Amino acid sequence: MRISIVNPNSTRSMTETIAHAARQAAARGTEILAYQNDAGPISIEGHVDGALAVPGLLHALAIAERDGADAHIIACFDDTGLEAARSILKGPVIGIGEAAARMATLVARRYSVITTLSVSVPILEDNLSRAGLSSLCASVRASELPVLALEADPEAANAKISEEIARAIDEDGAEAIVLGCAGMADFAASLSERHGVPVVEGVSAAVKLMEAAVTLGLKTVKRGGYATPRPKDQGFVYPDGMIGYTESAPVLEPVE
Amino acid sequence: MRISIVNPNSTRSMTETIAHAARQAAARGTEILAYQNDAGPISIEGHVDGALAVPGLLHALAIAERDGADAHIIACFDDTGLEAARSILKGPVIGIGEAAARMATLVARRYSVITTLSVSVPILEDNLSRAGLSSLCASVRASELPVLALEADPEAANAKISEEIARAIDEDGAEAIVLGCAGMADFAASLSERHGVPVVEGVSAAVKLMEAAVTLGLKTVKRGGYATPRPKDQGFVYPDGMIGYTESAPVLEPVE
Amino acid sequence: MRISIVNPNSTRSMTETIAHAARQAAARGTEILAYQNDAGPISIEGHVDGALAVPGLLHALAIAERDGADAHIIACFDDTGLEAARSILKGPVIGIGEAAARMATLVARRYSVITTLSVSVPILEDNLSRAGLSSLCASVRASELPVLALEADPEAANAKISEEIARAIDEDGAEAIVLGCAGMADFAASLSERHGVPVVEGVSAAVKLMEAAVTLGLKTVKRGGYATPRPKDQGFVYPDGMIGYTESAPVLEPVE
Amino acid sequence: MRISIVNPNSTRSMTETIAHAARQAAARGTEILAYQNDAGPISIEGHVDGALAVPGLLHALAIAERDGADAHIIACFDDTGLEAARSILKGPVIGIGEAAARMATLVARRYSVITTLSVSVPILEDNLSRAGLSSLCASVRASELPVLALEADPEAANAKISEEIARAIDEDGAEAIVLGCAGMADFAASLSERHGVPVVEGVSAAVKLMEAAVTLGLKTVKRGGYATPRPKDQGFVYPDGMIGYTESAPVLEPVE
Amino acid sequence: MRISIVNPNSTRSMTETIAHAARQAAARGTEILAYQNDAGPISIEGHVDGALAVPGLLHALAIAERDGADAHIIACFDDTGLEAARSILKGPVIGIGEAAARMATLVARRYSVITTLSVSVPILEDNLSRAGLSSLCASVRASELPVLALEADPEAANAKISEEIARAIDEDGAEAIVLGCAGMADFAASLSERHGVPVVEGVSAAVKLMEAAVTLGLKTVKRGGYATPRPKDQGFVYPDGMIGYTESAPVLEPVE
Amino acid sequence: MRISIVNPNSTRSMTETIAHAARQAAARGTEILAYQNDAGPISIEGHVDGALAVPGLLHALAIAERDGADAHIIACFDDTGLEAARSILKGPVIGIGEAAARMATLVARRYSVITTLSVSVPILEDNLSRAGLSSLCASVRASELPVLALEADPEAANAKISEEIARAIDEDGAEAIVLGCAGMADFAASLSERHGVPVVEGVSAAVKLMEAAVTLGLKTVKRGGYATPRPKDQGFVYPDGMIGYTESAPVLEPVE
Repeated sequence: MRISIVNPNSTRSMTETIAHAARQAAARGTEILAYQNDAGPISIEGHVDGALAVPGLLHALAIAERDGADAHIIACFDDTGLEAARSILKGPVIGIGEAAARMATLVARRYSVITTLSVSVPILEDNLSRAGLSSLCASVRASELPVLALEADPEAANAKISEEIARAIDEDGAEAIVLGCAGMADFAASLSERHGVPVVEGVSAAVKLMEAAVTLGLKTVKRGGYATPRPKDQGFVYPDGMIGYTESAPVLEPVE
Repeated sequence: MRISIVNPNSTRSMTETIAHAARQAAARGTEILAYQNDAGPISIEGHVDGALAVPGLLHALAIAERDGADAHIIACFDDTGLEAARSILKGPVIGIGEAAARMATLVARRYSVITTLSVSVPILEDNLSRAGLSSLCASVRASELPVLALEADPEAANAKISEEIARAIDEDGAEAIVLGCAGMADFAASLSERHGVPVVEGVSAAVKLMEAAVTLGLKTVKRGGYATPRPKDQGFVYPDGMIGYTESAPVLEPVE
Repeated sequence: MRISIVNPNSTRSMTETIAHAARQAAARGTEILAYQNDAGPISIEGHVDGALAVPGLLHALAIAERDGADAHIIACFDDTGLEAARSILKGPVIGIGEAAARMATLVARRYSVITTLSVSVPILEDNLSRAGLSSLCASVRASELPVLALEADPEAANAKISEEIARAIDEDGAEAIVLGCAGMADFAASLSERHGVPVVEGVSAAVKLMEAAVTLGLKTVKRGGYATPRPKDQGFVYPDGMIGYTESAPVLEPVE
Repeated sequence: MRISIVNPNSTRSMTETIAHAARQAAARGTEILAYQNDAGPISIEGHVDGALAVPGLLHALAIAERDGADAHIIACFDDTGLEAARSILKGPVIGIGEAAARMATLVARRYSVITTLSVSVPILEDNLSRAGLSSLCASVRASELPVLALEADPEAANAKISEEIARAIDEDGAEAIVLGCAGMADFAASLSERHGVPVVEGVSAAVKLMEAAVTLGLKTVKRGGYATPRPKDQGFVYPDGMIGYTESAPVLEPVE
Repeated sequence: MRISIVNPNSTRSMTETIAHAARQAAARGTEILAYQNDAGPISIEGHVDGALAVPGLLHALAIAERDGADAHIIACFDDTGLEAARSILKGPVIGIGEAAARMATLVARRYSVITTLSVSVPILEDNLSRAGLSSLCASVRASELPVLALEADPEAANAKISEEIARAIDEDGAEAIVLGCAGMADFAASLSERHGVPVVEGVSAAVKLMEAAVTLGLKTVKRGGYATPRPKDQGFVYPDGMIGYTESAPVLEPVE
Repeated sequence: MRISIVNPNSTRSMTETIAHAARQAAARGTEILAYQNDAGPISIEGHVDGALAVPGLLHALAIAERDGADAHIIACFDDTGLEAARSILKGPVIGIGEAAARMATLVARRYSVITTLSVSVPILEDNLSRAGLSSLCASVRASELPVLALEADPEAANAKISEEIARAIDEDGAEAIVLGCAGMADFAASLSERHGVPVVEGVSAAVKLMEAAVTLGLKTVKRGGYATPRPKDQGFVYPDGMIGYTESAPVLEPVE
């Protein structure tokens, strides 16, 4: 099967890291198609970055489905554009935030999320609420590390995240930890060992859930909020029939 | 004071209707600045239309604040882009969906929303939940009338909406009705009289709430999810310093 | 338009302060009719004071409607007697507690209330829950300042309230503050500036919301819990046909 | 032990019915002191009747405690004045609405309440919510029988109530029924047999719960919202030191 | 009347303590039948102990009903096997955990539970949620005292529990305390006096609630989840017709 | 990897059906170890059957882990004994009820469960609530088909289930269906096609989720309610060191 993973931001190093992590997690027989949203901001921190990233992200996802992807992953912990993506795609689609939280609930009663900046906290809380994942969430904590700082000084980042994990366990009653940014993935195993609780990273969680959904033959329902958009009679159509917001959108190629 | 009202879609007749309704509701001394999102779809029906409308909408709102608006109204019942708008604007901002529901709770214990298509129902439910307005909401009902059908055959639309109102009162226990589309505004008074319950329309509700907020000196807090976005070092900046997603965005002029 | 504001307690200095604040907030063209409940306790602190204040308060509100008031404000942060008032009045009516919380939700995701004594905390929590305002409420905190102490030593009161605001922001995640007593109104602007969050005061919030409701033509629904009380065949009727609990209730005159 | 039961309304026949039912339910050794609120309306139907009944009811309860009552029952299904009563009384106090719902939850997962008029439905819903009894409540249904109609034509009333019980079981999933008015008590046994579900009546439920509380030595906590009211320096004090709203309140004698 | 109380564990000294406490709380005319689950673990600490205790517990309860018990008490704070017990018994049945929490809500707005080990906290939280008692629960705190340690060193246990009570009041806003283990019963009165809040113990609370239910003629509904189990055609039937899991279960005799 | 699947009941034909379904769903490289609980009832319908099945089920799961299983599936839609199982097993474990609901939430906003008998409805509702899956659940509906009737007359069963699915979609707003019994698995694909919504079956969903968890290296946390049970000093230990309730438990062999 083919699973697409789209980085909603335009930072190449993150796209490559994400693609690598997805390929590590994939089963034999799963091909990962990785895309980058060149029309997006360099990182997604808060409502505005997220909103501006969505049109390009939807374009990339439409390309991915045309390229044969059976399922799709939005590689931002904010699950940017997830609901809109579910409306235009035939295959199932998940964001790495929702994916990580779903896996955490399999092995613990209450989990906490450690994310980057506090500007993202209400976004994550809204996403968890919408996905029915709030009642088991002990807390969403911000490490106040900007997304790109994770790449710049991983050791300092690791220490700061570890500190927040300790607080989530002690003060909030967390029994599992969800790492709330794609860039934290490498820390999962050592943090789990140090703190004695499961630590879930979103890219790999999303790959396994999408593999599961494809194997089970599940596709996003085309009813209710996910009904296929009615065609609009002006603009908003790509030459190849996909929904979009401008005819000048770039033709994307998967990242190898 | 100056209040901006932005139509997130690109249909001129709707922009004019909205601007007219806002000016009718405004107090003496309130100037209404109306804008149209020419980069948006012709109507907003569902997640995708909404997502694609946001960048242009944010651009229009930024223009509005530059033009001196003290508060802002997003004239789509889906409250398209509201959270992102609150992050970039100094003045208070509201969507007509949230505004109408807030006013309904002043005069009844439980209200129902009658919207256009069922594709919008989960969006409205999510918005009400996020705004803390769910617990008093008896139901969100779809009339299955497309947005533009309201303009095409108002009489048939009125009959269909009246039927849904009767059901909301009888089956769901609604004590007030929120008309879930800007195009339904003219029906409010007669529907209220016929059904014996308050019927609230969003544009006028939003104008009065924004007038109230400005008079009270309230501005959107710049903390948490509404913190001002950190500047990104590539793209995403307008020549005049406002946040945007492309340098080629059109310069908007208010609609008279 | 005419808006009545009724002080449910019998302390003249508070009635005058409240009337002044309401007139400050009112738009040109809005006449404020202020009443004092001479049959009430000197201040309302807890369930018993509140319960004993209601009959006189309802009497005053009925007088106000007879005097031509289009909308009504109950000037106690406990929203004393609000549900009963909605049952007897044609115009919309609000308490200053509900009004302040509603305005706070326009400019922040989560707000905290700083009230006087802890005896009032469950009352405010119940009111917010009934009004659908709980899910956005970060906390209700008591300063343990009695109502009348606010008048006696405003500076000390201000310091104590400021301290609680700091805690609400730091410990509870508040992004806006609601001042939970009519006597705290003068502190709002300076506290907002000091703490960098919106600070909402109830009297002015209530005036603006009632002006908005009247302009929109909204009246309290006469169904469900707000249905007009069935006439009882003994006692409980005023000579002028208004509902009451004794024929000897005094004829009230508005406070100038 | 001594348990007081106060009829918040002024209808003597109801007071006698209630006193009789309480004495039937009482254990040997329990003395029932019954009082009538002569200052109350003839029946309590909705917010206004309830609000006007409270001062006299509190007076009666204070008399009851002076007369040696160890616990107290408010004999109106609306639990009129319950929170205020808990603030002034040393012994535990319950309303018959809360009592019946509490007993129903011992023998079924979900219960429905059948009350008199729809004007009372939001009051009962608020009471159940405040008492933590909402999540197990399948529905609150109104038979639209006025309180005094139950006395006037018991057979017709029984048929109407039975019809609502059938609907509660079939449509709402009720597994037990709470009879929502003191006047329905005689119907409980036969309705239970006919419908095959427990049917709980409030007066007897309240007597048994108060007997239980007294035996266990439980008294209402004097903290938080139930803290003893601070003395006010004018009016509002009875000659014998009890809290009240006028010095001319009548001296009550228990009803035999 | 006859009320059975079953100790789900096999520790004789606890059975005797429980039987003694129940007989102390019982009214004249109430006979307490006490049973011990010899097929159970020596104490119940967590999910596994509880699960393994249930078959023997159900057997004991069936014996108790055959012996003429009108109502039943499960004497473990985890309310072990309560739902299954309600399915096989005609009389009402309660666990001491649910009983204590129900009595606490009669005299305070919010209560906290102090239990033994943290392994039991999620069990208690689930039980309270299922019983509709969560919304008034301020916290469930573990003293980390094993069940049998309460017997071994009561003074140290008392000190540790008192410490947790102080925290529940100060940090969680508790206004009443529920002692979360049968072995803590003797401490209730002195702890209540020391901390100035009601302290409820489960065995006596359960006895009084079951006496109340029997007097009111209430029996567990035989519908929904409590419907009588359909007979299985192999195994699972006792010689005397009671449901069970093996024919070799011992014949139990009440403990004197 | 090795995944165990345990049928908590003693019906061989169901064990074989379940084992077959699991092997169909398993990835290459996944070995399915299937066990049958010979000490359980012939089917699990309601609280009592479930409670009696748990000791044998835990025994079988302990055997499975000794046999090298990396993860575990409880093959009853009631998720019988799931919490206790998580306390004794190192690997992750899931019930087919929770598994199916989790997969449904990936492809639809709201799902309904169609189960067998109404006696199971509260059990499923409690499980969904505990697992944080309630808020997205539109309804749990009973077809009133006993478990073994599904095998006896599959065509009639299919028709009845299809009817309930139609009602769930039309009346409850379901957008996906969870088949609430292991015996319904074969109907999933045709029902999905007929009704145009995803239909999820639990055995295959559980296999894929456990494969995902094992690949991600996730193990159940050993804290809180899932902490390893403290050893008891009498009985309750298997010869091979596993926890149990009697030394005479049979040695189980996997079903081929």
